[in-house]
Amino acid sequence: MRELDGFWAVVPAGGAGTRLWPLSRSGSPKFLHDLTGSGSTLIQETHDRLAPLVGPRFLVVTGRAHEAAVREQLPSLGADDLVAEPSARDSMAAIGLAAAILERRAERTGEDLVMGSFAADHVIADVEAFARTVQEAVAAAREDHLVTIGIEPTFPSSAFGYIHQGDPLPGHDRACAVAEFVEKPSAEVAEEYLAAGGYRWNAGMFVARPTVLLGLLEEQDPGFAATLRAIAAEPGRLAELWEQCPKIAIDHAVAEPAAAAGRVATVPGDFGWDDIGDFDSLAGLLERRPGAKLATGPRDLTVLGDGDAVVALEASGVVVPASGRVVAVVGLDDVVVVDTPDALLVTTRARAQDVKAVVAALKERGRTDLT
Amino acid sequence: MRELDGFWAVVPAGGAGTRLWPLSRSGSPKFLHDLTGSGSTLIQETHDRLAPLVGPRFLVVTGRAHEAAVREQLPSLGADDLVAEPSARDSMAAIGLAAAILERRAERTGEDLVMGSFAADHVIADVEAFARTVQEAVAAAREDHLVTIGIEPTFPSSAFGYIHQGDPLPGHDRACAVAEFVEKPSAEVAEEYLAAGGYRWNAGMFVARPTVLLGLLEEQDPGFAATLRAIAAEPGRLAELWEQCPKIAIDHAVAEPAAAAGRVATVPGDFGWDDIGDFDSLAGLLERRPGAKLATGPRDLTVLGDGDAVVALEASGVVVPASGRVVAVVGLDDVVVVDTPDALLVTTRARAQDVKAVVAALKERGRTDLT
Repeated sequence: MRELDGFWAVVPAGGAGTRLWPLSRSGSPKFLHDLTGSGSTLIQETHDRLAPLVGPRFLVVTGRAHEAAVREQLPSLGADDLVAEPSARDSMAAIGLAAAILERRAERTGEDLVMGSFAADHVIADVEAFARTVQEAVAAAREDHLVTIGIEPTFPSSAFGYIHQGDPLPGHDRACAVAEFVEKPSAEVAEEYLAAGGYRWNAGMFVARPTVLLGLLEEQDPGFAATLRAIAAEPGRLAELWEQCPKIAIDHAVAEPAAAAGRVATVPGDFGWDDIGDFDSLAGLLERRPGAKLATGPRDLTVLGDGDAVVALEASGVVVPASGRVVAVVGLDDVVVVDTPDALLVTTRARAQDVKAVVAALKERGRTDLT
Repeated sequence: MRELDGFWAVVPAGGAGTRLWPLSRSGSPKFLHDLTGSGSTLIQETHDRLAPLVGPRFLVVTGRAHEAAVREQLPSLGADDLVAEPSARDSMAAIGLAAAILERRAERTGEDLVMGSFAADHVIADVEAFARTVQEAVAAAREDHLVTIGIEPTFPSSAFGYIHQGDPLPGHDRACAVAEFVEKPSAEVAEEYLAAGGYRWNAGMFVARPTVLLGLLEEQDPGFAATLRAIAAEPGRLAELWEQCPKIAIDHAVAEPAAAAGRVATVPGDFGWDDIGDFDSLAGLLERRPGAKLATGPRDLTVLGDGDAVVALEASGVVVPASGRVVAVVGLDDVVVVDTPDALLVTTRARAQDVKAVVAALKERGRTDLT
């Protein structure tokens, strides 16, 4: 895979990942962790997957609290390659500020820049297929579309929004128009989508010329676009102007209205994608990696970390031994055991979504040291 | 309850309690732990329950490795009130040596001594009922019976041996002859015993004149009795002679043959007894103590330790937070979570007996630091 001329990777690195507590904390969110046992953290994997396409053209947007950790994990980042948000203001502000910075750069250098925004905490199995998809998205973006990558659904998930695919884009291999974005459906509706075909998961991956993205925002909220451009023009005013940015997701702010206006294209992505939303998702991901399995009698248990730290008898599920202690699990199916130095979680894959209630309970008790 | 003249408590304190790992370890066996949340360890509770009956007349027999801990937990023990075994040689050697020491004392002082042997790690709910039972047992022992306390069964357990009760002992309130001791039965046979009546659990509580106990041993194994008497006569030879003692339980060495010869009596014990054999038993015990319960939604979870360290949502079973960390449990029934500074156990009440397999697996891995 060769570099794509003028293509920039924008990596918004935010989100506490409370459903992955106690591994993921507000002070140490999931993108800073190696959740796949690959030896790299999620943001490092994101970087390494994009580097062949963008070379050194990275822009990471993360919270001030995480700047030092991100720079440590991505030592190749230059001083200007990271924007530290004074506070979390959702994805439109983060990605829009990156667009404004790159728009100024394009004006200054005369380059034809295209940016692609890719979350720092997604997992992609087939990196080459990902690269081919991005290449197609960049080509469509050069025709002034806002291009989103539509993930081929592998099951009728009710945890993701869907992209309803429209007509093919003339002159492109797989790109199509987007008929509409639809909110997270019920499980039944999701099944209808899969049966009907032409629906894909919205993974929040957007590829566009910076000016196109900001132009679409300007149509919806001129003040917001002006604020982002003002920050890009005078970075010293970031702290002052940032709080004026609305807290809104890029999907609502730009993608949905632009789709209604026929301005959004989509390229299908079939490269083994996962956002590791909870420990059930993590367990499923690890199960597909044979090296992570531990035989425990009739069943297999998946271990993220040092398998020697786990003694398991007739157990299945996932164990994360992250405290240096021995973890023994006997006679439990689809269990989730996450052992960290200051907090332990024991639940089941089926209850993985309820972990956020533990975080809420701890906050209520004033134990923000653990959240 | 008043002191019973010449009555000595012998407390064999041994047994690693591997099914209570990781709380109980070979270096820190269960009798040294507070397993009921009472604020006292099991050996302290044993001492406090017997003190009103025996005053200062205690003899603890424990392993050398535990002498310091036992003396720390029972500061009232005098220098001669503890015998430190050079190695574990089962209950006949431990209780028999105590008998030989007390036999010499009786010869020297001319007192009419009776000894009662009570394990250091049993839990008894109704201390007054226990005292009344012991008093009856001592009275029967003064007629040269070997007297065993027969625990009223509360369910058809296959984990205990049974005492089959014979005819009433003339002149006594509740004491009967023992027809026979029967080995741990199958669950079906245990149900037949309960239906038939006249069967009680053998909790290994024996009350006898020291000379009677040693005389019964002498009939079965004269050399063994002679060795024990030789050690009592010359305590300096303990290390040398101890290894000659057979490793055998008092039940097999003395109680079973003596019962066959019509020499054993039993007094019924109905005082809420538990030997906390595993975490299922511990959970059941704690459930009957309202203070240990934590509401978790539709179900209650039992906590041994600091309830504030536990966050539980729709969970039942028992949690032991013994590491200072927060333990969160979500959506598991009858779970067992035991969290110690260097080892964590997650299992279910139904699999509580299998915890010993974890200890075996750790030994196989050379992790004797954890067993």
